[in-house]
Amino acid sequence: MSTERRAAVLSVGDELILGQIADTNARWILGALAEVGFLGIEHRTLPDDRAAIATAILEFARRVDAIVVTGGLGPTADDLTREALGDAAAPQAALELDPVAIDHLESFFTRRGRTMSPSNRKQALRPPGTAMLPNPNGTAMGIAARIGACAIFCLPGPPREMQPMFRASVVPALPTGAGAIATAAVHQLGLGESVAAERLGAMMDRDRSPTVGTTASGGVVTARIRAEGDRASASALVEETARQVERAWHPYAYGRDERTLVGAVASLLVESQRTLAVAESCTGGMLGSTIVDFPGASDFFVGGWIVYSNALKERLLGVPTAMLEAHGAVSEPVARALAQGAVERSGSDYGLAITGIAGPGGGSEGKPVGTVYVGLAQRDGGKSAARRFVITGDRHDVRERSARLALQMLRLELLGMAEVPLLWEAPPAGEKASTPATGRRA
Amino acid sequence: MSTERRAAVLSVGDELILGQIADTNARWILGALAEVGFLGIEHRTLPDDRAAIATAILEFARRVDAIVVTGGLGPTADDLTREALGDAAAPQAALELDPVAIDHLESFFTRRGRTMSPSNRKQALRPPGTAMLPNPNGTAMGIAARIGACAIFCLPGPPREMQPMFRASVVPALPTGAGAIATAAVHQLGLGESVAAERLGAMMDRDRSPTVGTTASGGVVTARIRAEGDRASASALVEETARQVERAWHPYAYGRDERTLVGAVASLLVESQRTLAVAESCTGGMLGSTIVDFPGASDFFVGGWIVYSNALKERLLGVPTAMLEAHGAVSEPVARALAQGAVERSGSDYGLAITGIAGPGGGSEGKPVGTVYVGLAQRDGGKSAARRFVITGDRHDVRERSARLALQMLRLELLGMAEVPLLWEAPPAGEKASTPATGRRA
Repeated sequence: MSTERRAAVLSVGDELILGQIADTNARWILGALAEVGFLGIEHRTLPDDRAAIATAILEFARRVDAIVVTGGLGPTADDLTREALGDAAAPQAALELDPVAIDHLESFFTRRGRTMSPSNRKQALRPPGTAMLPNPNGTAMGIAARIGACAIFCLPGPPREMQPMFRASVVPALPTGAGAIATAAVHQLGLGESVAAERLGAMMDRDRSPTVGTTASGGVVTARIRAEGDRASASALVEETARQVERAWHPYAYGRDERTLVGAVASLLVESQRTLAVAESCTGGMLGSTIVDFPGASDFFVGGWIVYSNALKERLLGVPTAMLEAHGAVSEPVARALAQGAVERSGSDYGLAITGIAGPGGGSEGKPVGTVYVGLAQRDGGKSAARRFVITGDRHDVRERSARLALQMLRLELLGMAEVPLLWEAPPAGEKASTPATGRRA
Repeated sequence: MSTERRAAVLSVGDELILGQIADTNARWILGALAEVGFLGIEHRTLPDDRAAIATAILEFARRVDAIVVTGGLGPTADDLTREALGDAAAPQAALELDPVAIDHLESFFTRRGRTMSPSNRKQALRPPGTAMLPNPNGTAMGIAARIGACAIFCLPGPPREMQPMFRASVVPALPTGAGAIATAAVHQLGLGESVAAERLGAMMDRDRSPTVGTTASGGVVTARIRAEGDRASASALVEETARQVERAWHPYAYGRDERTLVGAVASLLVESQRTLAVAESCTGGMLGSTIVDFPGASDFFVGGWIVYSNALKERLLGVPTAMLEAHGAVSEPVARALAQGAVERSGSDYGLAITGIAGPGGGSEGKPVGTVYVGLAQRDGGKSAARRFVITGDRHDVRERSARLALQMLRLELLGMAEVPLLWEAPPAGEKASTPATGRRA
């Protein structure tokens, strides 16, 4: 028996229905609704078509407890959400000018030293019986309405404006229900999706609570755990299952929810007061950039080298010409030499190096496209090692997955578990690589 | 008068409606349909709910010429698209085993040295009167059906499987219409969205053909041009307007459609046989990585340095300690010194350097978060210069926009137009930065 409430999400815009831009709002809103106990039963994308928008709002209002609409609140002629909302919620009534909205618009422009254009006045209109929702980051205020027991929230399309409005104005105004939906995600890198699912066994049964499903993206496999009920018991159930998943995926599981591999590596490095440098060939800076995405990166990351040409591999990191000639730039000794060079020349405690063939060209029989060596060196004792992977995917995939494998290699080293096998790992003889995980169900 | 045909897109999956993964298929399919003259009038996302899927298919079949469904074709109990299609297209009839599909499945498993599990046999089922669509990349074949005049195509969810099937099996089977939709996109970086739109003037009138709309993402403003009609005249109209847009946006417009800033820079560098190196602080390798995304990068890109710590700025690129102490790492002289150091120590013709405060911490009154200096040096004549920007957005935005501004600075230098002003540019006195463009309409 489900205790949750039901919601629908509507995205409005010609640019969306023509496939010209990606709709990131729908996924964000559906996830945010689930967190507060609202189960999405439908998402719909429509063009800037007043009648279609009004029809969808009316149809949803009969079936769900809450509707969230994004887009169509701008100042131009093709912004029709406020009119469509009027058609649905207050038919035959004219839109009204909201005095608070007029103030909002005038102060928005005044603060920027600009004067309001007449077209912007349209943004102060709302159907009678509805209320404006503040927008601290733009001119388009939102509108809250009701049709019967259904609460409707219209928000502007830009995520930077929509997301704070959703948190500040929509969440507190949602019709309360008895239930909540608790969710958690556990991430691992190193097991393929099918092996990872096998390790979860009966946890993945469809009729179990909490439910557990897996998704995979860029090599990372995520278990998504979900339970319904009252907030405390749903959370406890989810927590217990999340721990079971982490045990089943040990030592590959590196974190939950928003935790990244870099975050996991960062904790271990900062804890032991160690530092890291990188040397990148085929990734061209992607590993460094991924590390710097993490706001506390300066606590452990010193920097590194992008040694894309062989000349720079020699000149900047001292890889011997003879080694490059004998083994090629994509080879185990070169990956080790790059990692060692990074440690020696930066003074860092650890060095990670990536050299590979990202494609589309450059592959050969012994070194097909996707062949990547990741080197790991440490200052203490001067140890270094390199592992060979054959990674499936296009140029971007191969580079992204290489960077993630490098981080997982370092994490496992820091945990004293450097020997565990990893997805896509291939012995130098060129044995068949493991099957890649897919990002989406069939 | 519109000559186009109408289409609807349906995405199926609990993981989508819970907001757990992003639906990239819908946008791709809507764009691909537009290219062959089908205008999307609605996109809908539904959970794995047999009745809801069947209802949507029936409802769409009354309103559109073609329906594309993705997801729900896997082997597990929650994959219900084939059953729902049967409910809609052949009610009361049992699903049939397709012998070709059985062969496909058996050979798929045999080639991988595995045996087919009984659950996979489900994937050979289809409603009577429908046909299987080949899937070269997975076990889930597609299904083609008709309800009245409406053509229905069910495809698996993983993009790597879906996209080739769409091209090979859906496009040739779409009901032909008289019309086509021609589209083009023109990209520029350097003008804010409002200024860019003003320069287009009457081209953006809603009732004009071709229609022109702008979208903005990460500083890049794109004009999307669209005309309907017979293929030749629609294409000619779009081409003419694209040229007008390029003239209006000169010299900021750098390319059309899939062309990237890196691609534009690459052409200019390769043409003049020049090479490039980078030195990155706050971007941490993102500029290098963006360059290496371009498959021909090795023709002009040698590599560079990630000098995240000040120690590495000194040690690897020779930035004087006194300069760092007097001006700080985020300063005009340091940006120039980094670019010069990159040229001198790599032997490249050009050097690009980025040093800035990406946030969330580290800002001060004189150097707020978003302050970025981009340095550009060249070997010929030893010239160097740096420009100051104050970029809005979060940590990732600031870094991404910095990398793009650096590439546009180099492009303009290569065109002999280094002096034109750029978005977010701010004189060192700390004058107010220009307003950022938003990525999506309100």
